[in-house]
Amino acid sequence: MMIIMRCGASDGEIAAVVERVEANGLHAHISTGEERTVIGAIGDGRPVYKDQFILMSGVDRVVPISRPYKLASREFRPENSVFPLDGVSIGGPGIVLIAGPCSVESRTQFLETAFAVREAGAHALRGGVFKPRTSPYSFQGLGEAGFDLLNEAREATGMPIVSEVMREEQISTMIQCVDVLQIGARNMQNFPLLHAVGASQHPVLLKRGMMATVEELLMAAEYILSEGNRRVMLCERGIRTFENSTRNTTDINAIPVLKELTHLPVMMDPSHSTGNWTLVTPIARAAIAAGADGLIVEVHPHPDEALSDGGQSLKPERYAELVRQVCAIAEAVGRCIAPVPVH
Amino acid sequence: MMIIMRCGASDGEIAAVVERVEANGLHAHISTGEERTVIGAIGDGRPVYKDQFILMSGVDRVVPISRPYKLASREFRPENSVFPLDGVSIGGPGIVLIAGPCSVESRTQFLETAFAVREAGAHALRGGVFKPRTSPYSFQGLGEAGFDLLNEAREATGMPIVSEVMREEQISTMIQCVDVLQIGARNMQNFPLLHAVGASQHPVLLKRGMMATVEELLMAAEYILSEGNRRVMLCERGIRTFENSTRNTTDINAIPVLKELTHLPVMMDPSHSTGNWTLVTPIARAAIAAGADGLIVEVHPHPDEALSDGGQSLKPERYAELVRQVCAIAEAVGRCIAPVPVH
Amino acid sequence: MMIIMRCGASDGEIAAVVERVEANGLHAHISTGEERTVIGAIGDGRPVYKDQFILMSGVDRVVPISRPYKLASREFRPENSVFPLDGVSIGGPGIVLIAGPCSVESRTQFLETAFAVREAGAHALRGGVFKPRTSPYSFQGLGEAGFDLLNEAREATGMPIVSEVMREEQISTMIQCVDVLQIGARNMQNFPLLHAVGASQHPVLLKRGMMATVEELLMAAEYILSEGNRRVMLCERGIRTFENSTRNTTDINAIPVLKELTHLPVMMDPSHSTGNWTLVTPIARAAIAAGADGLIVEVHPHPDEALSDGGQSLKPERYAELVRQVCAIAEAVGRCIAPVPVH
Amino acid sequence: MMIIMRCGASDGEIAAVVERVEANGLHAHISTGEERTVIGAIGDGRPVYKDQFILMSGVDRVVPISRPYKLASREFRPENSVFPLDGVSIGGPGIVLIAGPCSVESRTQFLETAFAVREAGAHALRGGVFKPRTSPYSFQGLGEAGFDLLNEAREATGMPIVSEVMREEQISTMIQCVDVLQIGARNMQNFPLLHAVGASQHPVLLKRGMMATVEELLMAAEYILSEGNRRVMLCERGIRTFENSTRNTTDINAIPVLKELTHLPVMMDPSHSTGNWTLVTPIARAAIAAGADGLIVEVHPHPDEALSDGGQSLKPERYAELVRQVCAIAEAVGRCIAPVPVH
Repeated sequence: MMIIMRCGASDGEIAAVVERVEANGLHAHISTGEERTVIGAIGDGRPVYKDQFILMSGVDRVVPISRPYKLASREFRPENSVFPLDGVSIGGPGIVLIAGPCSVESRTQFLETAFAVREAGAHALRGGVFKPRTSPYSFQGLGEAGFDLLNEAREATGMPIVSEVMREEQISTMIQCVDVLQIGARNMQNFPLLHAVGASQHPVLLKRGMMATVEELLMAAEYILSEGNRRVMLCERGIRTFENSTRNTTDINAIPVLKELTHLPVMMDPSHSTGNWTLVTPIARAAIAAGADGLIVEVHPHPDEALSDGGQSLKPERYAELVRQVCAIAEAVGRCIAPVPVH
Repeated sequence: MMIIMRCGASDGEIAAVVERVEANGLHAHISTGEERTVIGAIGDGRPVYKDQFILMSGVDRVVPISRPYKLASREFRPENSVFPLDGVSIGGPGIVLIAGPCSVESRTQFLETAFAVREAGAHALRGGVFKPRTSPYSFQGLGEAGFDLLNEAREATGMPIVSEVMREEQISTMIQCVDVLQIGARNMQNFPLLHAVGASQHPVLLKRGMMATVEELLMAAEYILSEGNRRVMLCERGIRTFENSTRNTTDINAIPVLKELTHLPVMMDPSHSTGNWTLVTPIARAAIAAGADGLIVEVHPHPDEALSDGGQSLKPERYAELVRQVCAIAEAVGRCIAPVPVH
Repeated sequence: MMIIMRCGASDGEIAAVVERVEANGLHAHISTGEERTVIGAIGDGRPVYKDQFILMSGVDRVVPISRPYKLASREFRPENSVFPLDGVSIGGPGIVLIAGPCSVESRTQFLETAFAVREAGAHALRGGVFKPRTSPYSFQGLGEAGFDLLNEAREATGMPIVSEVMREEQISTMIQCVDVLQIGARNMQNFPLLHAVGASQHPVLLKRGMMATVEELLMAAEYILSEGNRRVMLCERGIRTFENSTRNTTDINAIPVLKELTHLPVMMDPSHSTGNWTLVTPIARAAIAAGADGLIVEVHPHPDEALSDGGQSLKPERYAELVRQVCAIAEAVGRCIAPVPVH
Repeated sequence: MMIIMRCGASDGEIAAVVERVEANGLHAHISTGEERTVIGAIGDGRPVYKDQFILMSGVDRVVPISRPYKLASREFRPENSVFPLDGVSIGGPGIVLIAGPCSVESRTQFLETAFAVREAGAHALRGGVFKPRTSPYSFQGLGEAGFDLLNEAREATGMPIVSEVMREEQISTMIQCVDVLQIGARNMQNFPLLHAVGASQHPVLLKRGMMATVEELLMAAEYILSEGNRRVMLCERGIRTFENSTRNTTDINAIPVLKELTHLPVMMDPSHSTGNWTLVTPIARAAIAAGADGLIVEVHPHPDEALSDGGQSLKPERYAELVRQVCAIAEAVGRCIAPVPVH
């Protein structure tokens, strides 16, 4: 941490900061410039509470030097984290495709979609049974009644299931029928839930909050990793900005930034990051071109009858076209679609 | 809902939209302009899923006409919602002051602050025992061990307690020692938690998410109100923007906007909305000048030793000065500090 | 325009709105819903000032129906605008590459870069002589002294020159040595300058303002088009958001959105949209994958000696690698790098 | 400037940075931490180009220590800048009120408004003759034809005139009939225009860009100050955020932040910062409560006939009420409305 003093800070003020730095078990290193003094607080990397210095007389600013996350960082683990999901490598050179409806609505709808996306080329099936909705009057998902459908689809298609968990109490039941627990954007900083999915030791797909910085996303991952759960995928799904021609603004920069900062697999959700099915395929291509390790895409056989997210869902045949185009992009960047295991 | 067709939409496309409008039990009302046709879907106010129309051929946009919240709206209840908290009127003409430390850290710290803010003029005491922290390595609050301190402070000072709830399971215990359940900014869209605090029928202080629109804040309130719990205070605490000279950007416009749209009391948290103690008093004055019904302010006897939010906490004597200045502003807008009940 | 009345608006209020609609030469079309009345103001597409209705008693909101731009819209011109620049087709199937230093600094630097980017594959050479800088103490460009270098580079390499114009008075001289006038992000809403470059009838590269919506970008283009100048390229260069791990946030969604809304060519500037040379190539790939018609990239032979934008400039050999990768992406989306004319 | 090395940077990399620091005429001061090395580059305050270090091998980040503006800073001039405008003190303890129509539309409209705001209590009269409009099809102001009306209103009412300048060539004529040159939000970073109004030595009202940070606003002021023109007022007028219930988001925090960082007078424009006349008075009160030195308010005798900004314009009688309320707030913060000079 560097403590930057105001211009004209007194010797006494500087001495008091040095004293407090040392009281924290740190070593103080003083740089005296023409205008200002800067005091480096040098330690062993343990977090020190910076507000205590901000408040001191004569202090202008405090600048952290260390990154606030450890386990999620490339510095901690230089090579990519790769882990298998039902025979498919996540985070390896192969691009992983997760597809399915926003919500599980009915047996027919879910199974029809499941077979269609498997046919078109998907490694895992998404489908929400608990839906966070802005309005209490909107469809909130089938709830636990949907678990049987998740199970049935998994057995019928052989595909692993990705589904959002909203409450800690749901975890123990969900891990019976769900292969990847999804943390939704609105829960990215629901810290008790992060602790709990961490403790579950179950694979997690962690979506970036619409208001979260890249650093906060990595801190959220740190909550899960610090419970000893290393099977965490990050997912960019658009951030909120002033632009209103799309539902969210895809932060495409975040893809290469995350690949630089962390060893964790980085996915993209072009359905939420655009909010409009006509934009899903171009942005899916862009994500892979930028270096993403996979996609999660909303597909519905009859989007105009969907109970949620219809406007951003692809019909199965359009999803098949997306897969073809993404495959071409993957090859252009020296990758491929991950091989599907033969069961 | 108004369904705006593209320029040059065909008669068949228009007819298909009309048919679907009617299939939803609505009446279709067609306006044929020089450039475009607009189809009004007129009903009884029940929500209709708009994505089904967005996807139809020839449709350009769909514009909702009704507001998505009901119970929270001024149209539903024109007069201000006023409710008593331990003898103090919330939402009435008197300004309500909630003050105390960010976190309950120790018996000494909490009781010292409690007596100091009561002395300076506070109607309720804030103090968190569960702390949502960006980093898993930061102080996370005393947890349940803090409940006894909440109880002790309440009994010793006679002040009602405001404290953040983070998990549904905490509610039943917390309502024993907490008079107002606070929903923090990061949980504003934790819908199961909103349902649960609604069902508790306990007073709620609902903080606006840092990336939530005013409309989303009102929808979050609607979750609580729809459980029959009418004792809800809204709280502006700053939003996230590109500006980085302050921790958050106080959305002062939201105060009069909320007073126009809703009957619920509107509070301001100038500590979080600025992130810097030197700005807390000017922004507290501004909030009351703009029409806020109360304030929630972080106070700590020794901010430089605080375990969280030290940089934005006022010392008790500075809080006392804030109360004096806010009192002058309240009078300038024809209000006063709410009378403190004699117990 | 749809004028949405408040719930419970009186017959008199509705009648007054209807009267004013008709006084504007429009036809009023009334939809009476369960909750509200909506009045459609139907005309011949000429703009009508909406604030006059917002202010009327009983009016809740006014929703525009027509898009505010005409000449820039796909509805006005369904096919892509394609125009030649020194033999290269802009806006056609071939990807156009503009490269060069942020600023022209010296004869050696500019000519060295010019030959290097031509060799690596560039269709046009960028180089600023007037530099908008946040600080008055930063390098402001060579000014008119740079014109000779622009001319020399053009003659030596045969490449057309793209350079930013900051003042109307510069135009008449600049069009002698510059083939494309660039409007920088900070001048996107400098309306007198837009009028002037429009009147010049010279090709224009219009950069999106860092806080401008897609619609505002199209309105800025409309200023130029309305002067009869049809040779306008749009350029996404990143917007300002809360995210601070990159200098700007590339709005990749804007690429397919613009391709849908307008017939004008859409370029991307990955140097400014990221602010970090390590991110330029991945984001350049993403732009082409998303459908951009070309790129404008900062290249400098010695970025660490650059007088501006060194941190986001590629060395020539890295630019050559970018061209190779972008070429592969172009092929994956069924396009190619535009053929370079033989002079 | 502090240069923060990556974890594990080599001795050679550190030595290279030190060498370059010294080649810039600075002194290098090395702090060796457990994880990282930090190199302080200590000099005489002259700006050094930081990108040259960012690009060096082993460098993680570069953190500036000095503020980038000098003349605008409190450190340069601790006491408030106060200057007279036609007998009224700007930046002193008295609150200064500027009011008038968005645009000068006609003799009747402008004179009627001028006398009304003088009567209600205004120190200066605003009125635009050059209007920056998003659409080329909107009213663009009377242009030079409006100069006579500015002159006539000044003579008839004795009030100084505030009017926006959009082009450098307008300055020499405008300073004949305009007492304060306004730089609009869209021109805050039109650097040639800033230089030119600086060189004019005429008083300037500099509006914050909707996308500009507080620091960038101060840098824009620095352009004017560096020409020797010290009569600069800053004006907060709302920033662009994700919130869409208001036209802009009033950055109320910026008022006390600016008062801390700079000696220049700080004004607020509640008309643009809200975009809705019902919010203007509450936000005007808030601005004064937060410490603003004055207001600039749009007033129109018939807002529903205004050619621009009708929806955010106050009628004269509502402006008179604003003045009464602002006067009460001014007194509550120990200030007053600035005395109007007797001519």
